Amino acid sequence: MTEWTGDQLIQVDQTVRRWLVELGREARETKNQDLHVGQKEGDFRNIVTNLDTTNQAWLVDHIRSIDPDAHIVAEEGDLQRPETMAGHVWFIDPIDGTLNFVHEKTDFAIMVALYIDGKPTLGWIAKVMTNQVFHGGPTIGAFVNDQKLVPVADLGLKESILIVSGRRLISGEKPYVAIASAALAYRVLGSAGISFSRLFLQQATGYFSKLSPWDLAAGRVLAETLGYVVKSLDGSPLNMLSSNTVLIATTKTYRESVKIVKD
Amino acid sequence: MTEWTGDQLIQVDQTVRRWLVELGREARETKNQDLHVGQKEGDFRNIVTNLDTTNQAWLVDHIRSIDPDAHIVAEEGDLQRPETMAGHVWFIDPIDGTLNFVHEKTDFAIMVALYIDGKPTLGWIAKVMTNQVFHGGPTIGAFVNDQKLVPVADLGLKESILIVSGRRLISGEKPYVAIASAALAYRVLGSAGISFSRLFLQQATGYFSKLSPWDLAAGRVLAETLGYVVKSLDGSPLNMLSSNTVLIATTKTYRESVKIVKD
Repeated sequence: MTEWTGDQLIQVDQTVRRWLVELGREARETKNQDLHVGQKEGDFRNIVTNLDTTNQAWLVDHIRSIDPDAHIVAEEGDLQRPETMAGHVWFIDPIDGTLNFVHEKTDFAIMVALYIDGKPTLGWIAKVMTNQVFHGGPTIGAFVNDQKLVPVADLGLKESILIVSGRRLISGEKPYVAIASAALAYRVLGSAGISFSRLFLQQATGYFSKLSPWDLAAGRVLAETLGYVVKSLDGSPLNMLSSNTVLIATTKTYRESVKIVKD
Repeated sequence: MTEWTGDQLIQVDQTVRRWLVELGREARETKNQDLHVGQKEGDFRNIVTNLDTTNQAWLVDHIRSIDPDAHIVAEEGDLQRPETMAGHVWFIDPIDGTLNFVHEKTDFAIMVALYIDGKPTLGWIAKVMTNQVFHGGPTIGAFVNDQKLVPVADLGLKESILIVSGRRLISGEKPYVAIASAALAYRVLGSAGISFSRLFLQQATGYFSKLSPWDLAAGRVLAETLGYVVKSLDGSPLNMLSSNTVLIATTKTYRESVKIVKD
């Protein structure tokens, strides 16, 4: 079974949305004294909490209950990653922006996505602290909670805000510095999900970062649904099973950025 | 009259808080089609709206109604700036983070401060979109709405988030790059008021920027009340009638930052 009807997609959309509302409520109620924070790969900036782990296990269980044969690509632990995008592939980021979650108690997200035969099909981004779930896909449209989102206005770099990866910018990677310098202003928010949410609400014209599959998958579904370009700067195809340096932007901002980096 | 009693300060604190709640409500209800956006000094990144102008005029009138002989230092227009900090000096930033206000509809603030004979006395930062007013001072304590804020925990650069000026960072100014690189992570938020509010809620350990008097005045009052250091990196005294490159930070983060920049 690799096809779901439109009605089935609507049902799945609402089901996963309810899951994220529930996980979001728990995350908001979690006090820091209940958190165990560990490092990954010996990097003190790359952390994981017990909530990342339990959220992910909960989501894996629940996804398997509705889609037993699907592959799942998730941030934490050692789930077997599929070798191709054939069939149903789900992506999970159980806490996106874990540093923000631990230190700011805001600007973190929970993200889930479904790709069918490589096609971005459904995406969910729960902006936990404001109790907003961005959800939907190309077949059913994109929403924030029950409100339909409108297609993006095609603004250029100098007409609104750009969001960039703080780590990439400060390491001096030239495309990041060049594009951020050209923008009206740039912001560094520390969470892919929160950055995507600002695109969906037209609070920014672009988001430039290097993203892991679980950072990109849900945002890509919704961004493309709303008319954003989701591409690498050289136009090479995205590989959803590895990291991508990707610019999610209005057409005009994308074109201007490509030109700036080429020049 | 240059002294106000503790009771008078409490009354002034509550009065100005009410003003900011009222101005905040109006700002939330202002649609972009009602905004006129102009450039200042021929700089497309330095903008002013009709709401900056009307908020400021409203605040100047209301301040004069309770403190007729005070001096007022404000961001917009051509109020006569005092030559010294003697007596009562009020500071007004009618919309802090105007780019965010226009393009993001979030992360902007309205800020007011009162200094008496150079002493930081009362400060108000209205985080408009969340309807929070941070207010108070060394005599009466610091609050968010009715909740008393707790003194800062003395965390270092590697233990939490740093907030920096995006413009300074990207122009390659060495202290900004060095301190941001050393921090656990850094954020760029585009508003001094919002950045200060994160310090007050202990969502960050420091904020490093070059700030005009109206950007700094209210935040300084509240930050010092909560135990933050508010200083230039070389320890030279702040001049509240001109711009200052200033690090607002926990003692530990301040000391570490000074060492990093010296080395």
